[in-house]
Amino acid sequence: MRAVDLIRKKRNAEELTAEEIAFLIEGATRDAIPDYQMAAWLMAVLWRGMTRAELTALTESMLKSGELLDFSHLPAAKVDKHSTGGVGDKTSLVIAPIVAAAGLYVPMISGRGLGHTGGTLDKLESIPGFNVNLSLAEFERVLQECRCGLIGQTPQIAPADKKLYALRDVTATVESPYLICASIMSKKMAEGIDALVLDVKTGDGAFMKEQKDAIYLAELMVETGMRMGKKVVALITDMSQPLGKKIGNALEVEECIEVLHGGGPQDLIDLCIELSAWMLLLGSRSANLAKGRALAAEMISSGRARDTFRQIVSLQGGDAGVIDDVQRLPRAAHTRQIHTPRDGFVSAIRCENVGVAGMILGGGREKKEDGVDPSVGIVLQKKVRDAVRAGEALCTVHYNSESRLEEACELLEESFRIAPKAPPPVPLVHKVIGAE
Amino acid sequence: MRAVDLIRKKRNAEELTAEEIAFLIEGATRDAIPDYQMAAWLMAVLWRGMTRAELTALTESMLKSGELLDFSHLPAAKVDKHSTGGVGDKTSLVIAPIVAAAGLYVPMISGRGLGHTGGTLDKLESIPGFNVNLSLAEFERVLQECRCGLIGQTPQIAPADKKLYALRDVTATVESPYLICASIMSKKMAEGIDALVLDVKTGDGAFMKEQKDAIYLAELMVETGMRMGKKVVALITDMSQPLGKKIGNALEVEECIEVLHGGGPQDLIDLCIELSAWMLLLGSRSANLAKGRALAAEMISSGRARDTFRQIVSLQGGDAGVIDDVQRLPRAAHTRQIHTPRDGFVSAIRCENVGVAGMILGGGREKKEDGVDPSVGIVLQKKVRDAVRAGEALCTVHYNSESRLEEACELLEESFRIAPKAPPPVPLVHKVIGAE
Repeated sequence: MRAVDLIRKKRNAEELTAEEIAFLIEGATRDAIPDYQMAAWLMAVLWRGMTRAELTALTESMLKSGELLDFSHLPAAKVDKHSTGGVGDKTSLVIAPIVAAAGLYVPMISGRGLGHTGGTLDKLESIPGFNVNLSLAEFERVLQECRCGLIGQTPQIAPADKKLYALRDVTATVESPYLICASIMSKKMAEGIDALVLDVKTGDGAFMKEQKDAIYLAELMVETGMRMGKKVVALITDMSQPLGKKIGNALEVEECIEVLHGGGPQDLIDLCIELSAWMLLLGSRSANLAKGRALAAEMISSGRARDTFRQIVSLQGGDAGVIDDVQRLPRAAHTRQIHTPRDGFVSAIRCENVGVAGMILGGGREKKEDGVDPSVGIVLQKKVRDAVRAGEALCTVHYNSESRLEEACELLEESFRIAPKAPPPVPLVHKVIGAE
Repeated sequence: MRAVDLIRKKRNAEELTAEEIAFLIEGATRDAIPDYQMAAWLMAVLWRGMTRAELTALTESMLKSGELLDFSHLPAAKVDKHSTGGVGDKTSLVIAPIVAAAGLYVPMISGRGLGHTGGTLDKLESIPGFNVNLSLAEFERVLQECRCGLIGQTPQIAPADKKLYALRDVTATVESPYLICASIMSKKMAEGIDALVLDVKTGDGAFMKEQKDAIYLAELMVETGMRMGKKVVALITDMSQPLGKKIGNALEVEECIEVLHGGGPQDLIDLCIELSAWMLLLGSRSANLAKGRALAAEMISSGRARDTFRQIVSLQGGDAGVIDDVQRLPRAAHTRQIHTPRDGFVSAIRCENVGVAGMILGGGREKKEDGVDPSVGIVLQKKVRDAVRAGEALCTVHYNSESRLEEACELLEESFRIAPKAPPPVPLVHKVIGAE
């Protein structure tokens, strides 16, 4: 078998066999196939797409390039949630404790933020002392103790994905839904989970702006997961405005703690309950979705999810005191408010711009190598459909440096659309894919 | 400027500027842009194609990556011919002496054979002592002396092409007509010529099997050459059967010598006269095509082309005695005839198969690294439209080793189609592109 023939085959829109795909991925992982051949193949995949069988083979080959975690000895179902990312998208920190408190295991391996979107690891690291870099043995110990662990990617998990992702990043081949699917699913399937709930964001602040693209990616992921013998459901959820009211690493942790204490903004609560309910259903903890929702709500109202979160933070070396005193989280030195010039209703918030403003303030990364300032961010005083009076605050900017403050504030000013009438409400969950 | 953005632009079917293309080609040539980025870009070009402006910019960047020969001090026009390659395609060895004998300069830089097609350099090297590896200074000396030199690619000429071609070869991106055009034209434009005649082959034995593909490539090359300020004409010529009767390196030199002596097969004579006539016209040596044909024919009948060839061979270190005694050329040890089983007419010869048979006998290369046996090959006793009687010889195989003889003979047997009636004649020149 020769790589050049497999590149030609894909280029000619012919289907590759599972053996051929395994040859490429194994070869690439151990550097037996040079990067330039993989780069040409990736571009041919972006061009021609993949069949479902090819996609499953790719995902399996990438999964098998590394270690497959085995938690089968743990006495309940292992479930996880993955989000394609958005602005203010902080549900993991609420959902993982809810589902773990309800009795299932949540071995969650997350990523970092890039561009206008945030990342779970960056949020967790704003908690003083929190260590996301556990070894797999430590991860398992935490998991056994409190049924949930929250860590970052390790070199043992799907090394082929690490290699391919680095190559995609510099060859303009990131956007292929097939490559996105294989990248996500190979890592999630390595967690040794029984079921996976996918939160596929759509709208201005999402990676997939168009709902049809989000649906297509969701269908690919659900089918790939099912072909690999897992229960998978995808929720297409709204990212036309930020989720919740707080954007920024420590600010988002603060908002999650509010929710775990029984408060917080309604959209965030609703989505956390919905995603948790699906996880509880797929993990056979609840008999139906309604019971799953009730159980999730009960985990919050009883304080058990909050207690589980406290336990996770503590087990992973973090300052669990933040849960009862959010002032212990890092705080930006200064704030500035953005005001509306006229009366009306917020008709839209340009979500990606809000994310970019947060990044510019130092809260996110323009390049992968960048560091993040955990304390900066944006707090929305108004969301879409809220009434506003001229001069009222739309949002508050939390900043430390003035170097790009004006740029961020201008972006935010432009992001709010004020209209004489409130727009019709948009459902938080647009569609569910993969449910029987 | 970043390579990844230029890959994305091409992937999105947007037009690159001349500066952007120069950035890529210069970067690739000095290894500042890694092969994996160029590979992804090449696949994107294969996918999306190029505009004429992009193609000219690419050709110019590749040309400028190396040395541009300057023969402007020589007192007549510099012209060359390039063929896209075929089976038995040996016209260079006849044309170059014709046009040089008629007073123009022919600084011809040629290539080697690959797969089923032969290469001018391999043919020349079957002449004992002939040196195709002249330095550029030696090349110019030969050119000054006899108005023609026949050499191989030097590292100074279009190094970007050498690099890109190696990458295309292993990334299944050879077939793009845009990349083919830029590769050919960048090297030809480096010869310091005023005019170029392109022989674009079409049919079973050609690289472009379909006439429409040959025409498309011809149009690209003609327009690119004209945009670069040169006179360029392309002839779309027939390669549905081998050209002439002899296939194999020394056998083809022998056939060229036959033509230069006033003999040889008619199709080869006709094509040599036609291509020479266009070179003489573009080089302003003849006032029109008819006069060009007459002048070319006169160069043969007067023996002046033969004398010029003798001089070239001698100046490039070869045994000029072969011109009067072809027995001095290498000869295969054995021959075997292929016979027809029945009466009729040759209705077709599967041209590519004949080329492959020649390669299998050792006369061509399966891989670039392979060597060639100059003496082996095939002599056709019958061509398309010839009448045959059962048991008559169709062709003679000249071979040294029996290792793959049967395979070659079987291919040849399958290559001849015998029908009760002769097919209608096919013109040798299908179309001329670029002539006013």
